[in-house]
Amino acid sequence: MLLYIYLIAITAEAMSGALAAGRRNMDMFGVAFIAFITALGGGTVRDMLLGNYPVTWTQHPMYIYMTISAGLFTILVARYMHRLHSIFLLLDAMGLIAFTIIGCNVALRLNYSPTVVVMAGITTGIFGGILRDILCNRTPMVLRKELYASVSLLVAILYLCLLHFGVNHDINLLASFGFGLSLRLAAIRWGWTLPMFSYAPGRWGE
Amino acid sequence: MLLYIYLIAITAEAMSGALAAGRRNMDMFGVAFIAFITALGGGTVRDMLLGNYPVTWTQHPMYIYMTISAGLFTILVARYMHRLHSIFLLLDAMGLIAFTIIGCNVALRLNYSPTVVVMAGITTGIFGGILRDILCNRTPMVLRKELYASVSLLVAILYLCLLHFGVNHDINLLASFGFGLSLRLAAIRWGWTLPMFSYAPGRWGE
Amino acid sequence: MLLYIYLIAITAEAMSGALAAGRRNMDMFGVAFIAFITALGGGTVRDMLLGNYPVTWTQHPMYIYMTISAGLFTILVARYMHRLHSIFLLLDAMGLIAFTIIGCNVALRLNYSPTVVVMAGITTGIFGGILRDILCNRTPMVLRKELYASVSLLVAILYLCLLHFGVNHDINLLASFGFGLSLRLAAIRWGWTLPMFSYAPGRWGE
Repeated sequence: MLLYIYLIAITAEAMSGALAAGRRNMDMFGVAFIAFITALGGGTVRDMLLGNYPVTWTQHPMYIYMTISAGLFTILVARYMHRLHSIFLLLDAMGLIAFTIIGCNVALRLNYSPTVVVMAGITTGIFGGILRDILCNRTPMVLRKELYASVSLLVAILYLCLLHFGVNHDINLLASFGFGLSLRLAAIRWGWTLPMFSYAPGRWGE
Repeated sequence: MLLYIYLIAITAEAMSGALAAGRRNMDMFGVAFIAFITALGGGTVRDMLLGNYPVTWTQHPMYIYMTISAGLFTILVARYMHRLHSIFLLLDAMGLIAFTIIGCNVALRLNYSPTVVVMAGITTGIFGGILRDILCNRTPMVLRKELYASVSLLVAILYLCLLHFGVNHDINLLASFGFGLSLRLAAIRWGWTLPMFSYAPGRWGE
Repeated sequence: MLLYIYLIAITAEAMSGALAAGRRNMDMFGVAFIAFITALGGGTVRDMLLGNYPVTWTQHPMYIYMTISAGLFTILVARYMHRLHSIFLLLDAMGLIAFTIIGCNVALRLNYSPTVVVMAGITTGIFGGILRDILCNRTPMVLRKELYASVSLLVAILYLCLLHFGVNHDINLLASFGFGLSLRLAAIRWGWTLPMFSYAPGRWGE
């Protein structure tokens, strides 16, 4: 089941990458490139951080073709995207959670300590979007918007706790998904955010 | 022969990095640093993606000195650069193709699948320029200009096909270079571009 | 001793990251995230470049908690930061030098050549700040300000020379710190900079 959600997730992420590229008037290559990096960049950074070679997508060319196709397909349907906005946010939320859990599992398999496992989950969940925003020359959104990265953090902790207490894995997945999805959708619906830190220009650092 | 072209290529790339640093009023260290990363960053990212340790330039200090020298030298000749513009574009195009083929060869040696070999070629070809643009805080040019990244893609595919069909390696190199160089120079001469994707601000993603 | 200075250093770097995040109005997660990357990103990039797995902080969860706490703590004391400006610059300078020497030692242990050892020292010293500036969407400061990256370069060279000539390690540390700290503080005090390279827009590259 996690695999199917993963495939939906990389498609949704690739489309969000393609839209960001479109805002920067990139050409078709740029769109495909940003789509690919948005969808698979988080897992790539995780693999490089953990020394988990070979990097996942290099063993699954299908992922490469899927994300590039999704990116190019987005060009065709971009004008209808605003109508699909709600379903898109739902897919993106599912992707965030699936990425997080998959990232935790990779670090667990390599016997990293719990803190690092949580960091691996978050990295997988949010770094694709961060790379997308860096490449499109804007301040990473996931660090400023409604609860997003924090959902990834909490899901990773919940998943790890349930694992630790020996809860059945299917129930764990269900609980983590249920919790994460509810939290993310509620955050979007009611505009929940973390407190922001605004630092007015002083002398240090600029 | 590929080695000589490679040395010319990293010099040309280092110079393009230095000029970009100059546009941002960086100091001499910054110029040398950006020159180094522009020239050797593509290969570095490729090595880190493929797990190809040790990273190439760590075994060839000469490459480090060459790129840094080329960067600093650029400061002296910057005022004459516009006269050398055509030759510079030619060297840059040769570099793009040499980088691409070298990148493919590294991935082939590590037994990656053809899709990943092509991706390794493109990464080597264009990622130095992408890192340069990220460090200089601008949207990566290679994803927006005349055919550039696409030349890298097509050269990688052509090189791999000819290899697959057992064509003599020298002829393969000659054909790949001839094709890539013609395509890139024609694209510059007649302003060939890929279709662009412009996405007007909607609600998603900003 | 180096370890204590290292702990002070990652705290100071984390705080500088948090302030930069505050300038971009990031939420608490973003602040913690940027603090972590500013403090530990340089060492992470070094480890990934040198193939030094597992990456250092994955084996020391305490570093993760320290940098995140320092980042969040900065939110509370931000309004008093301008009064602490001088001591902050001192801690930052100590951090730069400690990072540089630690980076050199890692590369030495892996038997890299002297040039690469120096590059590893510089990478550890300055890359955290570069990642911070990339994530906050601004041109990296360390490449434009008063002598900073160059201090890292000279300290690395001095440390390596003294090591080469068999100088007692404690004396070497003392000399490298004394020299680096004096140079950096003098550069801040009298505004010493490297010559800048300003390149007015021509046709190449934009």
